[in-house]
Amino acid sequence: MQNRQIVLASRPSAAASVDNFRLVQSQTPALQSGQVLVRHHYLSLDPYMRGRMNEGKSYAAAQALDTVMIGGTVGEVVESRSEAFKPGDSVLGMGGWQEYSVVDAGQPGMLRKVDTSTIPASAYLGAVGMPGVTAWVGLNHIIGAKAGETVVVDAASGAVGSVVGQLAKARGCRAVGIAGGAEKCAYVRDELGFDACIDYKAARDFKSLAAALDAAAPGGVDGLFENVGGLILDVVLSRMNAFGRIAVCGMISGYNGEPIPLADPRLVLTQRLKMQGFIVSEHLALWPQALAELGAGVASGKLKYRESVAQGLESAPAAFIGLLAGRNFGKQIVKLV
Amino acid sequence: MQNRQIVLASRPSAAASVDNFRLVQSQTPALQSGQVLVRHHYLSLDPYMRGRMNEGKSYAAAQALDTVMIGGTVGEVVESRSEAFKPGDSVLGMGGWQEYSVVDAGQPGMLRKVDTSTIPASAYLGAVGMPGVTAWVGLNHIIGAKAGETVVVDAASGAVGSVVGQLAKARGCRAVGIAGGAEKCAYVRDELGFDACIDYKAARDFKSLAAALDAAAPGGVDGLFENVGGLILDVVLSRMNAFGRIAVCGMISGYNGEPIPLADPRLVLTQRLKMQGFIVSEHLALWPQALAELGAGVASGKLKYRESVAQGLESAPAAFIGLLAGRNFGKQIVKLV
Repeated sequence: MQNRQIVLASRPSAAASVDNFRLVQSQTPALQSGQVLVRHHYLSLDPYMRGRMNEGKSYAAAQALDTVMIGGTVGEVVESRSEAFKPGDSVLGMGGWQEYSVVDAGQPGMLRKVDTSTIPASAYLGAVGMPGVTAWVGLNHIIGAKAGETVVVDAASGAVGSVVGQLAKARGCRAVGIAGGAEKCAYVRDELGFDACIDYKAARDFKSLAAALDAAAPGGVDGLFENVGGLILDVVLSRMNAFGRIAVCGMISGYNGEPIPLADPRLVLTQRLKMQGFIVSEHLALWPQALAELGAGVASGKLKYRESVAQGLESAPAAFIGLLAGRNFGKQIVKLV
Repeated sequence: MQNRQIVLASRPSAAASVDNFRLVQSQTPALQSGQVLVRHHYLSLDPYMRGRMNEGKSYAAAQALDTVMIGGTVGEVVESRSEAFKPGDSVLGMGGWQEYSVVDAGQPGMLRKVDTSTIPASAYLGAVGMPGVTAWVGLNHIIGAKAGETVVVDAASGAVGSVVGQLAKARGCRAVGIAGGAEKCAYVRDELGFDACIDYKAARDFKSLAAALDAAAPGGVDGLFENVGGLILDVVLSRMNAFGRIAVCGMISGYNGEPIPLADPRLVLTQRLKMQGFIVSEHLALWPQALAELGAGVASGKLKYRESVAQGLESAPAAFIGLLAGRNFGKQIVKLV
């Protein structure tokens, strides 16, 4: 089968750009016994991919040059030499930035059938997928949010943040979002049901952001779900209540390698805070419980989400660069079929 | 009874000095029913007192001006109107920087009888007291050190740090200390039995301190017991293994209010670290178990400690300023009798 793929052509020296990627054409190899050919319908774009473009120490191995960019995909089995899958099955996998993938279907965790009768296929890349589970694990397992507490999440309109706030509300918390721009903030408040949302683009220094947070969280902050880092982290940290918990999920403000020092680590001591980094793939035991709740929420319409949809594989690099700059609105996906 | 007391005369604008204190004379009040008059034999000097000299938000209330400085004391009951205590009893309390105190002995936690037949009285202010329990709680409850792991502690020759390393060794860990000067480091290694000790005065920038740590902890660092902050914290953080734990007990490098930003908080994410501040008085349920182990260790001679002894109440301010500058060697106490 004729296949199109996007490979990592070069590593960014600072900010990533579309020039770091290259579109290539190839033929899918013939299937071996146990293998499945999947046609991808949707490709997931996620901030963690930026980290993998760098060389050097991080939690994930660096993406090798001239290999297909890693990424979650949902699609349809078009050919199968595995007894577990048949043509027409809807499947979730890590097919990468390409139109087709050949998968060793027998290896555990490589490919999972998904039910698209009550849940849209693309949701398995977002609210009912890795981003949703990330929100669930951070809120419940790292923060341990309790009814009556105030939880703050930044990148609040995004795939992870939007779920964090809605789950926090369902647990009886006050949910405060931080997002970029009035339109995103209105969505976070009015459609997702957060109690408040702060537009960080309208509050660009410590003092004004702190004033906005004081208004949005007058009782202080008990839980922070951190996706951004930098100034936002400094400000929220300064408003944490005693025994507050900070789940560090991402620090997208520093993905290009610029220093993002934490201004006042003494607060960890004086407020007896717990700050903990986590990666959702290291909490596999929690996934079934998380996916059950998230799936029920999306199927019933209670758990809301929004998608930014780029069309065609060739649009993936620009869509990814836009995601890093916050130009997406909700979960960023690429529609391939 | 004629009493001498040291009160907080003024708040430091930056570094604390002896001029912030004042010696006053007074008469102890007549005992009310249920009260006890205690003559202090030893006064404890501890870094946390520096925080209380400041105004403003911290975990402890600020010390009021013109009141007797707070502090732990061991002494002897000289007069009693309480059925629970009789003259001659050795007692531990929070008598403060003065020669005598009148204590409401009926209030829970105000005064505790101590056995000085196998444990020296002054040890109840150090290894078998608040500093020792601080070490125990941080190592076992916050870090959760396991056999085979590497634990780093700074201020390693001090009242807390010396216990951290010895307990870590007893649990089968590699114990690495950081202390100021060759003499302290020799004591930490040769007398306390740490595996290695780094002299931070001989490694004053990131690169040289990191090189020393790489030599002392070639397998990286799993647990950090943090008393100092600043450059030391930055360096050890950069050498933490995945899933490392950092117990934040103190940040003495920033007690004078100077900024001590944390250089690279991304490490919390990339290494999935847990960093948690704690105060030993908020873990009262753990004290009995901790004191049992610490007391047995001191009584048997296995748990070693060293004291810097200042003579006379009037020497307390200078001894305290010396403690903040690291001029003490081991637990800083003031001998009053």
